[in-house]
Amino acid sequence: MDNYADRHVFYISDGTAITAEVLGHAVMSQFPVTINSIALPFVETESRARAVKEQIDALWQQTGVRPLVFYSIVLPEIRAIILECEGFCQDIVQALVGPLQQELKLDPTPIAHRTHGLNPGNITQYDARIAAIDYTLAHDDGVSMRNLDQAQVILLGVSRCGKTPTSLYLAMQYGIRAANYPFIADDMDNLQLPAALRPLQHKLFGLTINAERLAAIREERRENSRYASMRQCRMEVAEVEALYRKHQIHYLNSTNYSVEEIATRIMDIMGLSRRMY
Amino acid sequence: MDNYADRHVFYISDGTAITAEVLGHAVMSQFPVTINSIALPFVETESRARAVKEQIDALWQQTGVRPLVFYSIVLPEIRAIILECEGFCQDIVQALVGPLQQELKLDPTPIAHRTHGLNPGNITQYDARIAAIDYTLAHDDGVSMRNLDQAQVILLGVSRCGKTPTSLYLAMQYGIRAANYPFIADDMDNLQLPAALRPLQHKLFGLTINAERLAAIREERRENSRYASMRQCRMEVAEVEALYRKHQIHYLNSTNYSVEEIATRIMDIMGLSRRMY
Repeated sequence: MDNYADRHVFYISDGTAITAEVLGHAVMSQFPVTINSIALPFVETESRARAVKEQIDALWQQTGVRPLVFYSIVLPEIRAIILECEGFCQDIVQALVGPLQQELKLDPTPIAHRTHGLNPGNITQYDARIAAIDYTLAHDDGVSMRNLDQAQVILLGVSRCGKTPTSLYLAMQYGIRAANYPFIADDMDNLQLPAALRPLQHKLFGLTINAERLAAIREERRENSRYASMRQCRMEVAEVEALYRKHQIHYLNSTNYSVEEIATRIMDIMGLSRRMY
Repeated sequence: MDNYADRHVFYISDGTAITAEVLGHAVMSQFPVTINSIALPFVETESRARAVKEQIDALWQQTGVRPLVFYSIVLPEIRAIILECEGFCQDIVQALVGPLQQELKLDPTPIAHRTHGLNPGNITQYDARIAAIDYTLAHDDGVSMRNLDQAQVILLGVSRCGKTPTSLYLAMQYGIRAANYPFIADDMDNLQLPAALRPLQHKLFGLTINAERLAAIREERRENSRYASMRQCRMEVAEVEALYRKHQIHYLNSTNYSVEEIATRIMDIMGLSRRMY
């Protein structure tokens, strides 16, 4: 790194470091800086903390540019070791705890918080989340039409428009039982909503995608196939969009959205509650 | 809500609100307060912002307890509307942007940051992430042994010890191609590492689990079965642990860990880099 606008950024925690990583990333995205990210989870012992301090200091000496450190560590003696480093350290949680303490008129209780952890108090919820992942896998790509009434949402769409990653994200992050059903080329001559889905119309959500992007994705899978041709992709997209409109099914064009954005929009539109894990 | 220590907490953003939710949750976990979470993503227009403000104010009037608001909104005119509400508002990103501005000697460039978004600059990475999900699904539960050498990690373990959710989390959150291979009851008489896995030993990672927890999970699946019996679970766990030790395979007991913790520990132990999406 020879540019002052390039920075090493550490995300350090006594837990998974996911919170430090997510927030640090959001903060850094506000600056025109190229970052080199290093996540160091489970810094729970003094010896590991000292090794981390040395890693940061070594980078500082090597590059001459001060590393940035976003951290969240509960135990004061571990935190103190990290704070001895030469990096620019920011406690991601404490910055907001102070103001909140005044508002709540309550003292913080510094327990090892394990934001993304498992404990006796949330194990039933956790099991429900794992059950949602199982359900979603069993109902991926129309594999099983059994127990479809237990789905909280059923995604529809052509092959490779994003149904499977979106369903899995909904299950994994939010414990939502998300089935998905594909419309395939053979359906297109007379595209209809399958009889099994009609009574569940309030749970249906359609995905669509720009034909150009769809063709590019399919081309990766099956080069020079009819499946990946622009003509085929344009036709399939037009047919499913007509179906969504005919049946007044909510739908979303996934082309410019990440799986996080698609999932979040679906929950918002369908009124599905977001449970944090 | 009749208790002052119960609070409605809003997570508001012009994007997915995932960052606000993750950080707000971490901050709130520091206080002995019961929270009722409301995530409001995609607050991108003045009309939606006004509706949100009214929702917050209505709750305040109804409960007499001030709602807490963790927000991240780029456009000043949208932010101003939210700030007019009666809730206790905390900008999750700005609290850290100020100190960083001094350290970096750079001004923040307030673009709609889309921390969890898709843009022309990251679409290739995004496609690799989707490919990792495809790979992981195709190599779930030993379904396919083809192209196993393309896996970045191969999880081993008995049925229901957490292989599938962990593999999917690794793929979904970090774009890691994670295969997994199950040891089944029939393998146990003479448990061996399958020949196909031997050349890939440096990619193997074992999961294990306490027999009691395993039996409880299996009991949910197949009540009163041999599969779910304590005797069977104890035997299977003992056998796979012996195998891991014999072949010097890194392994982890998943009993008290969430999928986030298991995945993060595996990446840490196996030296897999964490890419943020």
